[in-house]
Amino acid sequence: MTNQQLAVNTIKGLAMDAVQKANSGHPGMPMGMADLGVILWTEFLKVNPDVPTWADRDRFVLSNGHGSMLLYSLLHLAGFDVSLDDIRNFRQWGSPTAGHPERDLELGIEMTTGPLGQGFGAGVGMAIGEAHLAAKFGSGLVDHRTWGFVSDGDLMEGISYETASLAGHLGLGKLSYFYDDNEISIDGSTDMTFTEDVTARFRAINWHVLDIDGHDHAAIKEAAAASMEVGDQPTLIVAHTHIGHGSPNKQDTSSSHGSPLGDEEIFLTKEGMGWPTDETFTVAPEALELFSNAMDAGRAAYAHWQARTATSDRFAEFEAQHAPVDVSIDGPGFDGPIATRTVTGKIFDEMAAKVPGFIGGSADLVGSTKTQISGSGVMSSEDYSARNIAFGIREHAMGTIVNGLTLHGGLRAYGATFFVFSDYMRPALRLSALMSLPSIWNFSHESIFLGEDGPTHQPVEHLASLRAMPNMWVMRPADAAETIAAWESAFLRSDGPTTILTTRQNLPQIARSSDLGTIAQGGYVVRDGADAILIATGSEVSTMVDAADLLEADDIFCRVVSLPCWEQFFSQSSQYQADVLGSGPRISLEAGSTFGWHAIVGSDGLALGLDRFGASAPMEILAEKLRFTPVAVRNAVRSHLDQ
Amino acid sequence: MTNQQLAVNTIKGLAMDAVQKANSGHPGMPMGMADLGVILWTEFLKVNPDVPTWADRDRFVLSNGHGSMLLYSLLHLAGFDVSLDDIRNFRQWGSPTAGHPERDLELGIEMTTGPLGQGFGAGVGMAIGEAHLAAKFGSGLVDHRTWGFVSDGDLMEGISYETASLAGHLGLGKLSYFYDDNEISIDGSTDMTFTEDVTARFRAINWHVLDIDGHDHAAIKEAAAASMEVGDQPTLIVAHTHIGHGSPNKQDTSSSHGSPLGDEEIFLTKEGMGWPTDETFTVAPEALELFSNAMDAGRAAYAHWQARTATSDRFAEFEAQHAPVDVSIDGPGFDGPIATRTVTGKIFDEMAAKVPGFIGGSADLVGSTKTQISGSGVMSSEDYSARNIAFGIREHAMGTIVNGLTLHGGLRAYGATFFVFSDYMRPALRLSALMSLPSIWNFSHESIFLGEDGPTHQPVEHLASLRAMPNMWVMRPADAAETIAAWESAFLRSDGPTTILTTRQNLPQIARSSDLGTIAQGGYVVRDGADAILIATGSEVSTMVDAADLLEADDIFCRVVSLPCWEQFFSQSSQYQADVLGSGPRISLEAGSTFGWHAIVGSDGLALGLDRFGASAPMEILAEKLRFTPVAVRNAVRSHLDQ
Repeated sequence: MTNQQLAVNTIKGLAMDAVQKANSGHPGMPMGMADLGVILWTEFLKVNPDVPTWADRDRFVLSNGHGSMLLYSLLHLAGFDVSLDDIRNFRQWGSPTAGHPERDLELGIEMTTGPLGQGFGAGVGMAIGEAHLAAKFGSGLVDHRTWGFVSDGDLMEGISYETASLAGHLGLGKLSYFYDDNEISIDGSTDMTFTEDVTARFRAINWHVLDIDGHDHAAIKEAAAASMEVGDQPTLIVAHTHIGHGSPNKQDTSSSHGSPLGDEEIFLTKEGMGWPTDETFTVAPEALELFSNAMDAGRAAYAHWQARTATSDRFAEFEAQHAPVDVSIDGPGFDGPIATRTVTGKIFDEMAAKVPGFIGGSADLVGSTKTQISGSGVMSSEDYSARNIAFGIREHAMGTIVNGLTLHGGLRAYGATFFVFSDYMRPALRLSALMSLPSIWNFSHESIFLGEDGPTHQPVEHLASLRAMPNMWVMRPADAAETIAAWESAFLRSDGPTTILTTRQNLPQIARSSDLGTIAQGGYVVRDGADAILIATGSEVSTMVDAADLLEADDIFCRVVSLPCWEQFFSQSSQYQADVLGSGPRISLEAGSTFGWHAIVGSDGLALGLDRFGASAPMEILAEKLRFTPVAVRNAVRSHLDQ
Repeated sequence: MTNQQLAVNTIKGLAMDAVQKANSGHPGMPMGMADLGVILWTEFLKVNPDVPTWADRDRFVLSNGHGSMLLYSLLHLAGFDVSLDDIRNFRQWGSPTAGHPERDLELGIEMTTGPLGQGFGAGVGMAIGEAHLAAKFGSGLVDHRTWGFVSDGDLMEGISYETASLAGHLGLGKLSYFYDDNEISIDGSTDMTFTEDVTARFRAINWHVLDIDGHDHAAIKEAAAASMEVGDQPTLIVAHTHIGHGSPNKQDTSSSHGSPLGDEEIFLTKEGMGWPTDETFTVAPEALELFSNAMDAGRAAYAHWQARTATSDRFAEFEAQHAPVDVSIDGPGFDGPIATRTVTGKIFDEMAAKVPGFIGGSADLVGSTKTQISGSGVMSSEDYSARNIAFGIREHAMGTIVNGLTLHGGLRAYGATFFVFSDYMRPALRLSALMSLPSIWNFSHESIFLGEDGPTHQPVEHLASLRAMPNMWVMRPADAAETIAAWESAFLRSDGPTTILTTRQNLPQIARSSDLGTIAQGGYVVRDGADAILIATGSEVSTMVDAADLLEADDIFCRVVSLPCWEQFFSQSSQYQADVLGSGPRISLEAGSTFGWHAIVGSDGLALGLDRFGASAPMEILAEKLRFTPVAVRNAVRSHLDQ
């Protein structure tokens, strides 16, 4: 048996044993892709387990994350910090060997995967990141590949098509995916649902496609090498494999996909592959040696890279681009009414100048979101150094690619579209929050006040649905000052994503006459008053100020509170929160669902908002009909106070 | 000028004038697709403006809904109830001519479109619905086509790939889409982002693809006819068009996409096409006559169909299947602990027997969601009569197709997957709510208690995010009785979608000892007590009951309230709500974000839940660590009451 075969058997054994011990998990995929994993990791993948975060390492993405035991086995053999005990604790509380891989760069886990297609898309983002940084800093500092394992499930998800189409358009030559074509999905044969010609489809979107036996080590090696020879197309290696490979009774069946094989079948499988049947978690010493030698190649590559960095006149800049940013935005000064999307547009070049890794784009709405770095072009296969990415009408692709760019490192990536279309990219938004990834999401046209385009384009429940997401910061700025603060916060944040919402319509600049609190604390007093507390976000802050003026004429003096970011506000001390929210009847106003506002206004408070879909009409009419005018708010406040 | 050309010019004029008057909208697409619209509607589309809801009409879907003025113009010319005044009131409050088409069958608007790809996907669902009903009732009662207009934006969205792949797999021969290949998107040339070979890609997924000049009336006619000749493949007609066709300065530019052309350019365009420049909203009488004659063909087809129904022995059954259902589910009786997904599985055949239009499937998780009609096969090109649809790993496709099946009529369609993956289909969920469409969404594995698969698979914010969506009913049943009630409610509902959440884990049957309220009211008292009100949903109701037992041992007597459906509960009288929620300190418990719960527990209440992501571990450990055990709840309640 070759050492590579011993490594393959080791992985198969670990996968079977770990799933059996946990009594849950997915043995079929690790067994089916073990050959591919061993060849890729011992012959091609350039990583250094001693410096797992090395900037110029190859990226390995396991998009079919349910096969996590394959990754944990590979990491263990390669000498990353995944111990045999960790593998024995597969799927247990606190163990790094979670059911699906969870991003941990120190362990060599590049990203969290499991929701299908997310890895496929983020890998495209990583490859774009590499191409961009290589174009900027040269191949002496940046020259690595992105490798990925993908499944039929990844390919069926629309997100993989979106990102594959863009990857083909951009001609990303340093991207190689192995497609685990095992013809089995959870409910049975893929023939039930998936009978297309995958090869022809990928060729139609400008991919280099190869077709191999995924258990033939020589063929795997040849295909991986061939993928590296094609510089102007991404490669899909269609690898014909057998799920549960080696299991005499469960190979090629969906029963090996997501359940333990059972002691008896494990015995038979181990027996069949000449593996110890009287022990579990067997690791062949030759497998460890094979991987150790392979990793020495990675260590050597790292040493060479280090040597190059020592003589590179770009390395200081390279390092600076990988460091956290603490950016203070000046802006051109804003007086009169201006849309917060326009404010964003007017500070965009300044942000690009101050944050060298700032990169991103919009989903065919750059003119509407106002997100463009004017000093740079649009990225294409001719110019990877450009910092504006045209994602096409592909919001979900934008989401996964922004995550991939951010995961790559050296980049502060953003994606922009209309707020309502954040629905199309929700799995990517969630994954950025779950991975504690500082992706920046910029959604304009953030309320019904976009007007005539109507309810299909008017967000209502979106604020609540993002605020409910753990670790997502949602910023709804009320004017230019709050918009600037939102972008500053987004850049400062390192442990999670920030959503910045901007308006289509002009907003006045808020006159702030209180010193209680600051914008950066997420909530603060705009102006004071003792009779009631009027709380709002975004465009409704100025409506509340106007309503407060009207109420003042009625001898009712109201405090106005702006709450641009609930997450920041709720992370302040209870005392601060209580001070800002004050005592007195609380009335909130927001052009969106009132869902969630009662935590702020309380049982006796009044939450004004929109618990219905919007309508197609000019914004002034909508404000009138849906009671968002200062007069309507004044009336609602008065009637509430009279109760 | 031919009458068809006069009709084309009429449409172009109406589109330009309406957008100009509204000072917002999209003239470019209607001008570019007017030729296609006129030929399709006057030569092929089988509809009857006198009976717009005729079950056997052809379906027309405008997936690129921003070109709504094309649809309104066609409807006006064809004699549907869209007046010239309605067109003059384009994009105004209360007008049926909204910015994007809003479903109104009486007007001939088949569905709400605007979010790209949704129409493409729903059209596939309509075609599946037609194939299914034709297989069941025969071509005498059901024999119509689904026609659609789609744009580059539709094709770039992943949802179109997902549904197109399934449409190709199913060989839907009665589906024809015209692709408006105008090479222009909002940000400029599609060359910036979309350079794939669309024809080759669609051929790879088993579509019949034709390529024509989209302004050549003879070619359009020939292609539409050719698409009808191919019985075993859907057809994509790639129509090369010019956006803003006829505008001397704005044709072929993105400036004609989403802005008024301006008075001067409208003048020049009208002049160029020989159209009155001294009036607006010109409708050529010949155009009306042309459409009137064409509609006579539809009227005649309707009369023939009526004649066939009179002699069909299947028509009574056909009509019954199109009528509202009032279904009462018996179930086999449930005593011991059982997962609510398993309850669903055990009543599935009964529901299928009682609701003849019940149809649907899961996204490759049928074994996990337990959603299968055992007396029927899996739909395929060999058997359209089957009522189980295998959607593949395509949640978003499932969402749009279920909407399309429901829109088609005669069907009560459902889609099933894990709750966390509802994120992938959120645009379709929203559209079902916006369209007041009674689609049924069944999501299993509805909390962290799915266990070892970990946080990528564990929903947290999803309950809040769906509850915040207008018109979406969210059911989280606590046991078998509540599960049955949830399905009954879903079938009864006619004006909006219902989400039914089911557990992976077993739940005990709740012992109900109070008469205050019923399950169908969305919230009711499970058992009474005076010291505190414990409120929960789903799996946490039995945890609350156990906690109440523990508290009783401490001489604290608690009411336990189950709130399976907030939307139903909040639609009850205030008195009923107050009666059920009682007086006394309120404590809620739910295995999900606490976001939104303060509206129920109040300022002084305690909302127990999960405001973080979950973790990979066995469910018992998760309950322990994340404080969802009866003991942990007892302690939290005691400490809250002691405050």
